[in-house]
Amino acid sequence: MEARCSIVFYFLMLLALSSAFAFPSKKQYKPCKHLVLYFHDIIYNGKNAGNATSAIVAAPDGANLTILAGQFHFGNIAVFDDPITLDNNLHSKPVGRAQGLYIYDTKNTFTSWLGFTFVLNSTDHQGTINFSGADPIMVKSRDISIVGGTGDFFMHRGIATIMTDAFEGEVYFRLRVDIKFYECW
Amino acid sequence: MEARCSIVFYFLMLLALSSAFAFPSKKQYKPCKHLVLYFHDIIYNGKNAGNATSAIVAAPDGANLTILAGQFHFGNIAVFDDPITLDNNLHSKPVGRAQGLYIYDTKNTFTSWLGFTFVLNSTDHQGTINFSGADPIMVKSRDISIVGGTGDFFMHRGIATIMTDAFEGEVYFRLRVDIKFYECW
Amino acid sequence: MEARCSIVFYFLMLLALSSAFAFPSKKQYKPCKHLVLYFHDIIYNGKNAGNATSAIVAAPDGANLTILAGQFHFGNIAVFDDPITLDNNLHSKPVGRAQGLYIYDTKNTFTSWLGFTFVLNSTDHQGTINFSGADPIMVKSRDISIVGGTGDFFMHRGIATIMTDAFEGEVYFRLRVDIKFYECW
Repeated sequence: MEARCSIVFYFLMLLALSSAFAFPSKKQYKPCKHLVLYFHDIIYNGKNAGNATSAIVAAPDGANLTILAGQFHFGNIAVFDDPITLDNNLHSKPVGRAQGLYIYDTKNTFTSWLGFTFVLNSTDHQGTINFSGADPIMVKSRDISIVGGTGDFFMHRGIATIMTDAFEGEVYFRLRVDIKFYECW
Repeated sequence: MEARCSIVFYFLMLLALSSAFAFPSKKQYKPCKHLVLYFHDIIYNGKNAGNATSAIVAAPDGANLTILAGQFHFGNIAVFDDPITLDNNLHSKPVGRAQGLYIYDTKNTFTSWLGFTFVLNSTDHQGTINFSGADPIMVKSRDISIVGGTGDFFMHRGIATIMTDAFEGEVYFRLRVDIKFYECW
Repeated sequence: MEARCSIVFYFLMLLALSSAFAFPSKKQYKPCKHLVLYFHDIIYNGKNAGNATSAIVAAPDGANLTILAGQFHFGNIAVFDDPITLDNNLHSKPVGRAQGLYIYDTKNTFTSWLGFTFVLNSTDHQGTINFSGADPIMVKSRDISIVGGTGDFFMHRGIATIMTDAFEGEVYFRLRVDIKFYECW
């Protein structure tokens, strides 16, 4: 009987302890969900109305809306609705749209600030992911915050690691977005 | 005695298991707080300076600041300070202000991106609620993220379900905002 | 034996209960991390290109980009890249940059809406902090949300209490930002 009770004791100790540590263990640095997606931005330059996916809508004093401003584009705001793909091919079937704005906000290097949403609508994913953060463009890999989600990403939070996957003549760029959710529901 | 120990065992199993599952149960999909509010946007069109609550402040190349741009308003940014009411009547006593910006960001349908705050100041609620997300306007009911709060909504997170409750001639619209907090403090 | 089993019972009761309550105790209202920082904004007015750190990039109909708009600046959007310091001295060695936008969004008082990031790069702190919220400028102390972080502030959330520490002739202002993280990882 004593042995029996000891077994009960150790077994329940284990259970109780594992549940006591359940909370921190949930907050481990291993993503609870992981996605890699690409999005493609073609900025309007006065000549590409047909296939441009973004447009300059604000500029500093003296600049215009078809040419990115001179001083590292400082002061430009662009609005975008960019296709999201599973690979780095602009012509792959989109799985959703990246929608929001980016702002060039530094005078002595290329830095932007991002506020945007991934609106995913594919067989694999239905829902939105909301992003916010600074993007020091010249750094190879940089992190922004995933501040919320809806649908399949209900209440999720995490980190997105962004890499510039292509950059062509100030008209086209492609970002690789490594989405790591650390809080899943 | 053996029976007694078994009771202890099963009872504690239950406790241990219930605490092991306490975390998911906290994160159940039932809101911990729930509010329905309306806000009212009257956009400046060059003639209604007296009662306009929002203004176009950025537009794509070729557009102006008193008429929403042609291509589904793509590229317009509006800044707003809109009254919030408990019902759908513009003339009801406001319980706060919705402040921030919206952006029309799609060329082939009406879609906006929202970054704004509810500043509530009533006998029932004192505090702010911060929202961010994509708003596919033509969809009847759409979800954005509640990314934080202050005051009565200290550290809250959740989902806001938005419905267009009225839309009148591109000057006035009213949104019904169903605020569901899933993380309360 | 009965006594023994009772001890097991009470001990495990305690463990089970303490783990059941572990979650709320984590969510106490004492910050898990605390920082006070200052940032300095010098707005471009047409004459100070050399040391301006921000610029008006959008304005309501009829206003321009070198003078803040008349009606409590309603409708102005400014983009900024401001130095962050540990004390209230503009000339102290910066520990990072505050980058993003502010919007004047009220017609009858000074209110702004903020979306920005602290990019910290010092021996003490490496990482970013993302902020969002309404800033009723004339109120002495006001709270905005910390919606996420990266690096040293990985997944953090919290509240930032902002105070206007200096305001000089609509060209320079300094904000004191009391950063209180309530969710640390």
